[in-house]
Amino acid sequence: MRITLAQLNYQIGNFEENQQKMLDAINKALEQKSDLIIFSELAVCGYPPRDFLEFNDFIEQCMAVVNTLALASTNIGILVGAPTRNPNIEGKDLYNSAYYLYEGKIQKILHKALLPTYDVFDEYRYFEPAKDFDIIHHKGYKIAITICEDMWNVGNNNPMYTICPTDEVMVQHPQLLINLSASPFHYKHAAERIEVAKANVARYKIPLFYCNQTGAQTELIFDGGSLVLNALGAVYDEMPFFVECVRTYQLTDILAGLYTEHALGEEYKEPAAMIYEALLCGIKDYFNKSGLSKATLGLSGGIDSVLTTVLATHALGADNVHPILMPSQYSSEHSISDSELLCHNLGLQYSIIPIKEIYDKYITTLLPTFGEKAEDLTEENLQARIRANILMAYCNKMRYILLNTTNKSEAAVGYGTLYGDMCGGLGILGDVYKTQIYDIARYINRTNEIIPINCIHKAPSAELRPGQKDSDSLPEYSVLDKVLYQYIEMRQGPKEIIAMGFDDKLVHRVLKMVNSAEHKRHQTPPILRVSPKAFGSGRRMPIVAKYLMT
Amino acid sequence: MRITLAQLNYQIGNFEENQQKMLDAINKALEQKSDLIIFSELAVCGYPPRDFLEFNDFIEQCMAVVNTLALASTNIGILVGAPTRNPNIEGKDLYNSAYYLYEGKIQKILHKALLPTYDVFDEYRYFEPAKDFDIIHHKGYKIAITICEDMWNVGNNNPMYTICPTDEVMVQHPQLLINLSASPFHYKHAAERIEVAKANVARYKIPLFYCNQTGAQTELIFDGGSLVLNALGAVYDEMPFFVECVRTYQLTDILAGLYTEHALGEEYKEPAAMIYEALLCGIKDYFNKSGLSKATLGLSGGIDSVLTTVLATHALGADNVHPILMPSQYSSEHSISDSELLCHNLGLQYSIIPIKEIYDKYITTLLPTFGEKAEDLTEENLQARIRANILMAYCNKMRYILLNTTNKSEAAVGYGTLYGDMCGGLGILGDVYKTQIYDIARYINRTNEIIPINCIHKAPSAELRPGQKDSDSLPEYSVLDKVLYQYIEMRQGPKEIIAMGFDDKLVHRVLKMVNSAEHKRHQTPPILRVSPKAFGSGRRMPIVAKYLMT
Repeated sequence: MRITLAQLNYQIGNFEENQQKMLDAINKALEQKSDLIIFSELAVCGYPPRDFLEFNDFIEQCMAVVNTLALASTNIGILVGAPTRNPNIEGKDLYNSAYYLYEGKIQKILHKALLPTYDVFDEYRYFEPAKDFDIIHHKGYKIAITICEDMWNVGNNNPMYTICPTDEVMVQHPQLLINLSASPFHYKHAAERIEVAKANVARYKIPLFYCNQTGAQTELIFDGGSLVLNALGAVYDEMPFFVECVRTYQLTDILAGLYTEHALGEEYKEPAAMIYEALLCGIKDYFNKSGLSKATLGLSGGIDSVLTTVLATHALGADNVHPILMPSQYSSEHSISDSELLCHNLGLQYSIIPIKEIYDKYITTLLPTFGEKAEDLTEENLQARIRANILMAYCNKMRYILLNTTNKSEAAVGYGTLYGDMCGGLGILGDVYKTQIYDIARYINRTNEIIPINCIHKAPSAELRPGQKDSDSLPEYSVLDKVLYQYIEMRQGPKEIIAMGFDDKLVHRVLKMVNSAEHKRHQTPPILRVSPKAFGSGRRMPIVAKYLMT
Repeated sequence: MRITLAQLNYQIGNFEENQQKMLDAINKALEQKSDLIIFSELAVCGYPPRDFLEFNDFIEQCMAVVNTLALASTNIGILVGAPTRNPNIEGKDLYNSAYYLYEGKIQKILHKALLPTYDVFDEYRYFEPAKDFDIIHHKGYKIAITICEDMWNVGNNNPMYTICPTDEVMVQHPQLLINLSASPFHYKHAAERIEVAKANVARYKIPLFYCNQTGAQTELIFDGGSLVLNALGAVYDEMPFFVECVRTYQLTDILAGLYTEHALGEEYKEPAAMIYEALLCGIKDYFNKSGLSKATLGLSGGIDSVLTTVLATHALGADNVHPILMPSQYSSEHSISDSELLCHNLGLQYSIIPIKEIYDKYITTLLPTFGEKAEDLTEENLQARIRANILMAYCNKMRYILLNTTNKSEAAVGYGTLYGDMCGGLGILGDVYKTQIYDIARYINRTNEIIPINCIHKAPSAELRPGQKDSDSLPEYSVLDKVLYQYIEMRQGPKEIIAMGFDDKLVHRVLKMVNSAEHKRHQTPPILRVSPKAFGSGRRMPIVAKYLMT
């Protein structure tokens, strides 16, 4: 038997295009004399469809795609993810299902049992968990079908769940395990995925075909990396990351324990390289799927806007990125010279629009109202907001999208101006700590100096008042980022973090800054997620609250 | 036996203050010779605590409050909502529990079974559902304890759930049913609550004590309205809406079917009146719980900013509200005159800050970049963003909070400028359709003309170009709002809405506008929720998607 994995990049709710992609993959599989083609979880509508699932019309359109695919299954088995209506009156309205299509019709529908409802996942919001488990029979083989999370409780070792779907289905002695996934990237995820896949094979001693989707859905980035493991737990093939891939495998080869030249084709790259590639994917798909192509941003010569410029250029091409330099009276000379050098290195056109005259006009306009009140944060925020207004005017007039350059350290402690530097259609670096930003910059410069070295070496500054440095108001990033990581990613409280050896006062100060900035983060653009715990839908905090605020 | 209901307004994570409020209520109950005091769901930390629940430290602080309350239970039973750690390895880490405290210690802990995971609710994200059901014995009475949603599946008539906790617990023949709730307001909710309470009593023929929290938690507004029903299903008492209330009841009176003078003390007001009161509560608590007092907003003389000004003044007092009038070359004369009349009626100080000079400076600054490109939406957005920048500068300098005046109809179709009129700390009207805004304005004017009648009668206009009217680019609000209601609140698709008699093209156009504006709504402030389906955490839509976009 030949089996095809179809690792595709779907657009949510774009039924026509998703269907055409799947039909093309089926044709390719048929050319390769495949007997079974596997698509990913909720492939017909793209994952995650979120509350679109609450619309009957949306479910009907999903069903129409399934029915069209069924018609294409005359000579090939098809496994495809789609929602199913729950026929029982009680319970959630839908199941998250795998459809087995063959000989022109729906042969069997199997449902997902483990519904992730944590971090960015809301599956129990929509779906009833499966209570029955079954296999399919295809071309003489007994095949166990599972969906994504169902595979992540190997031998019931995941404390989150009380049942183990793979154990349940194994009582029917399948010869093969298939998993339809939609499992988003973070920089530790590819390694975890291989580990879980191997643990399944180690337990059940049968080959595994794992099909993931690829491409970004706004902030969630799916890396693909679909897998075939032989019954000994060796990786027979790993599909490339962040691209579509359709490949057909000879099952007898896999059962015989052979290898392909693709086995672990993606070396396990350092986090900086993985994040770099994920961010390119996130930028590309945000633009492609929105039908847009052109990006702008405020380029200050600081490392965040510099890195964002490089990423945007690598993702969209030099013709599609137009930075704007907006010096003020507080801008350093290297702000302009470093930015111009970067644009030169990347082959970018750019504009210089000084803000001083507009700034002065605001000051004189506000003078009758403010009187003799001393300068304070107001004037700093004003500069950031004038820049945002110029950038948005450029976007409106020229049909560009503004990229947001806020990093995770700043977003965490609220070091940014709402409606100023916190503006943009998409947050490129909002899940990347400042210290990681330097890692990625060095990765980009690994063969030649794309990023002017001065951008990496100079002390971070917002340049909103004379001689300002980030370190005037924030702890050093090398310490700050470690405290933030413990609080955000590891969900450790003040006692635990202090017990690790961090200064008592510093920890309380940082945690208070984070909790005080929820109202700002609530209004930021979607942030490309590259870590296990990003700001956005995966971290849901009260805004008006009083916890760790002293 | 005497029973006390304590309907209190908690602050999320403010353990010290929450504990003190509860201790004060216990003292009051003891003075009234009460035998049992009832607090609401998750009272120790306030509801909803969201991802704070994922921090051990947070759970420990909850437990510390429970233990302190236990020490105060020597002579009075206490029922209080708090999270409990799940002692089993498998399943979610926590239960959503009711603690029964008496004689100085924790006597029993009962868990919630029905965990709302829809709309604004995420309880299965955190909690394992109860599988066992039990009663408590207090002073010779057998009492069934349920938590919020547990009561909302009377006789298993709610299709969302497969078990009925009240049926389960009734096998032990309790003489009394108690419910600890945290049930947020929408304008249909008070009536639904009474109906569900009556259905429970009709089924079980025992009295019901229902304790809700009151006060707003950012966007969620809890109305209180705690209830006592006698065994015949008559409302013995209903507590007032949107205020704290501690009252003690003689159980023998209730068993005898007597009434109090408070029975249905809150007449069922028209929606406009209910929404008006809810919005005042939402504004008050946003400021009080943030430790803030002063609000500003851009007052254009249009009905949205006019109504927001009135609500803010009624909530915070005339001394705490300072509108800013920011005329441009396109502002009508009545923009200023209506606004000044309103401020006069309300006794408000205000500022006038014209934007033309700043606007002109932007235009000349941008001229080298834009060249001879024709005027378009850019210049309209620019005006809105200059106003936002002035308002935010005022907030920063004077320590005010900007109120957002966007209404639900505009928010739905994306008729607003990001970082312009979509700015603010809190969205006051974002869950109120334009047609409802006029209803509330008329309600406010019911006895005397607080709102200048011209504000109600003039045609809506953004006044961003000469002679502009909302109806130039939008359908009439009387039609638009009906289509939006069907799509947003009722989750009807295009086919269903067209079948109701709405024009085919209009429906497709409106739905496309709604789905195209997700990226804008993603960056709006939290919006006070007064309807069953508000923009915000209760409506989770993909941003980059292509559904109903043609």
